[in-house]
Amino acid sequence: MWQLYQFPLCPFTRKVRTLLNEKDVGYQLMRENPWERRDAFIDMNPAGQTPVMTDNERGVVLVDSMAICEYFEETVERVAMINGTAANRAEIRRLVSWFDTHFYRDVTQPLLDERMIKRIAHRMAPDASRLREAMKSAVGHLDYIDFLLDHRKWIAGSTISLADLAAAAQISVADYLGGIDWAGHALTKSWYSAFKSRRSFRPLLAERISGIEPPSYYENPDF
Amino acid sequence: MWQLYQFPLCPFTRKVRTLLNEKDVGYQLMRENPWERRDAFIDMNPAGQTPVMTDNERGVVLVDSMAICEYFEETVERVAMINGTAANRAEIRRLVSWFDTHFYRDVTQPLLDERMIKRIAHRMAPDASRLREAMKSAVGHLDYIDFLLDHRKWIAGSTISLADLAAAAQISVADYLGGIDWAGHALTKSWYSAFKSRRSFRPLLAERISGIEPPSYYENPDF
Repeated sequence: MWQLYQFPLCPFTRKVRTLLNEKDVGYQLMRENPWERRDAFIDMNPAGQTPVMTDNERGVVLVDSMAICEYFEETVERVAMINGTAANRAEIRRLVSWFDTHFYRDVTQPLLDERMIKRIAHRMAPDASRLREAMKSAVGHLDYIDFLLDHRKWIAGSTISLADLAAAAQISVADYLGGIDWAGHALTKSWYSAFKSRRSFRPLLAERISGIEPPSYYENPDF
Repeated sequence: MWQLYQFPLCPFTRKVRTLLNEKDVGYQLMRENPWERRDAFIDMNPAGQTPVMTDNERGVVLVDSMAICEYFEETVERVAMINGTAANRAEIRRLVSWFDTHFYRDVTQPLLDERMIKRIAHRMAPDASRLREAMKSAVGHLDYIDFLLDHRKWIAGSTISLADLAAAAQISVADYLGGIDWAGHALTKSWYSAFKSRRSFRPLLAERISGIEPPSYYENPDF
């Protein structure tokens, strides 16, 4: 059995979990707060980040969310999420990197820092100007997703792919933390509404961080 | 013919170029200074980063250095650089991400900002404390590479892989900018010395940014 080290609002873990759920790969959740920098966790991953997956029977440790996704794409054929021609696959990987790097840096990371880590690790108030900046960036990112969905059925092309999973993972964390204004983004909203109903993704929306409540519409596909 | 948009000290482009050279894939270099944010370049890559590759005959645009490497791994069989078992491949991808993300953020990016971009784009003096911090981080990173090479012939295992290319790419830029102190890192030095002699990598060491000279030993495999 795979063990998956994570915390409920880790966007990279959400991408991996949705992929594992799509592929029907079983795993056991292990709670890890990477900001505590637990020694045994740093030994597994010197980068100190979630997710990390281990399988003691196989003697395998997997680190880095994209390396984990590529591993399961290679080893579990069912439901390919890096699919299509080599050029399609390059476009999927470009967009996964876009959400993992740019959306995370501009939107998810400041929201997590200000609204979660400051609260639970440091008992500090959030920096209002950094929050405003993140929410402004979120509007720009949703504009870009609208642009992509104006040309395509899914984010990277005509079929669902890891790019959709990566986007939904980041958005779901930002939305939990009140960082997404859905007004004016009809295409992204309709795409995300369909995503919320997926069997692979719905369970993630039911999880809570104690002391931080998501908006009332959070789990509702009709929002 | 592929066209590759880049500037001489872009570490991500150096990783891609070494891979293309190993695989004997031809390409034409197109000079791009991403900090100028040229409109036509932003249209190709909204992330505004090098490298970008285009092939007008094929009608393909490739963006994101890891997506580019995966594309050529998939389409050009010769000299596989993401090789071995699925677990080996995961370890290669973990380490590529380590160098692309952590080494870059801690070492290469501050050196590029302070010693190159401030000079050529802003005509400003570098921030000495940020440079000291980057050089201190470089020591920690070389300690980690020494640790890896104490267990393995190459950075990710028993054969050369994309992890070596990613590490050498970052190190070669940091070394050009005077950020690497080679004393006390015998294993990394011996690995890099061998790397400097590779036909795929040597041409990169001959390139110069006008007005910024590398250390005198820069191209010498015996340093």
